[in-house]
Amino acid sequence: MKIGVFDSGVGGLTVLRALMDRIPEVDYLYLGDTARLPYGAKSRTTVARYAASSARFLVGEGAEFLVIACNTASALALDAIRDAASVPVLGVVETGANAAQVSSDTRDVMVMATAATVESHAYAAACAVRGLRTIEKACPLLVPLVEEGWIEHPVTSEVLRIYLAELMEQARAAELHPDTLVLGCTHYPLLRTQIERAVPETLQVIDSAAVTAAQVERRLGILRGAVNGARPARFFATDSVVKFRTLGSRFLGRAIDDVELVDLGN
Amino acid sequence: MKIGVFDSGVGGLTVLRALMDRIPEVDYLYLGDTARLPYGAKSRTTVARYAASSARFLVGEGAEFLVIACNTASALALDAIRDAASVPVLGVVETGANAAQVSSDTRDVMVMATAATVESHAYAAACAVRGLRTIEKACPLLVPLVEEGWIEHPVTSEVLRIYLAELMEQARAAELHPDTLVLGCTHYPLLRTQIERAVPETLQVIDSAAVTAAQVERRLGILRGAVNGARPARFFATDSVVKFRTLGSRFLGRAIDDVELVDLGN
Repeated sequence: MKIGVFDSGVGGLTVLRALMDRIPEVDYLYLGDTARLPYGAKSRTTVARYAASSARFLVGEGAEFLVIACNTASALALDAIRDAASVPVLGVVETGANAAQVSSDTRDVMVMATAATVESHAYAAACAVRGLRTIEKACPLLVPLVEEGWIEHPVTSEVLRIYLAELMEQARAAELHPDTLVLGCTHYPLLRTQIERAVPETLQVIDSAAVTAAQVERRLGILRGAVNGARPARFFATDSVVKFRTLGSRFLGRAIDDVELVDLGN
Repeated sequence: MKIGVFDSGVGGLTVLRALMDRIPEVDYLYLGDTARLPYGAKSRTTVARYAASSARFLVGEGAEFLVIACNTASALALDAIRDAASVPVLGVVETGANAAQVSSDTRDVMVMATAATVESHAYAAACAVRGLRTIEKACPLLVPLVEEGWIEHPVTSEVLRIYLAELMEQARAAELHPDTLVLGCTHYPLLRTQIERAVPETLQVIDSAAVTAAQVERRLGILRGAVNGARPARFFATDSVVKFRTLGSRFLGRAIDDVELVDLGN
């Protein structure tokens, strides 16, 4: 069994990490479309074209199941990806919304995400069809803080405190009573401990990487065999192989030895 | 006289703002290649292709002089732009290095810039040919802090304090005695007051927008006539016209009423 994981950059490696921890018995392919990131600033047509070509590449390399670890692609291009790929596809927006649906008793949830994801209102839409009301907040400083490596850092604590206070205030103003917080960006699982520390204990924090891995496992109905650790994944990037390797290993939680450069055109 | 100002995004509007303040008697065209940003993650070939097509567009719209307000394009593609454009071209890396050369008595300078600009070592190279030694520091949090609007903000003060302390430490370790600090990113002029407050008074802070405007003025030898304020500039973007207008007005320091969407291909 081969699972292909796709993101516009290295953030989706947090999803791959959760998958490798949870389902070590399969082979993984990871594609970071680093030459064409960020998808967030691009139109739906462009994102759909990029994501479809990326999905076709992974299927061509043997992927029998696709995990779309890119929020923008999940939000804007899931149908295009499903049309382009002949294999089952699961996107992080739907897995996050699925987990929120299970978690929330009040039916009110909060979402922290990048500006582009919030502007797409993809989480609000996915939550609405599941009967949930949603408050979304753009947190544009969190990705650069994570990429700077400032995880256990007073500046990050202070930024989180400000963002979370603004989010709670938004919820109050809208007269919602959220009991669930969805981390709607693949970089945020690295801040999960800090975020859980900063919110009331009654608030359930949904880590999109972990819940995606759990849902992939259920979807595949994998029979757990005796496996000695995960097999090495194959990594592909469309640009900046060195940056992918150095930055990516922080997200994956282990060294990335080899990254193959691929050209998917414009 | 028409001056074309080019950047990959809205940051270069700080340069346009300085130009409009200093040389109000000319017409301005501004192009933000927002569909294809960020240039920083792209290869030299790709940046050269994008920058050349952008330069040709501005010349086609009547620009008789080009200011490259994009650090990456100035660093990687100035020759390609000069080949593509039939008009004089000035880039922010050379104007910053020119100003540092005039400012520095110790011949040692420090540069704060984005990760991509630092990785290109464009400032170090431009300073070296002018007889200056250089310490460069990537400051990846400053652009998102400016775009978040956190200018007079304790988090920004703390981030600047950390970055500046690390920069001074780098200089000490290299046994340099810098007396000049170049702000090597078009977003940083908005933080100039905060930066000047955080460094010793003896350190000269070079604001790339202001020194670029001064050097364009000298280059053009403009005869100052009686002018009633700046004429409205024309603005072009390759994507996200709304975002350009809202975010851009903060950089320009005045409202941007109209942005024309242009398609420069891939």
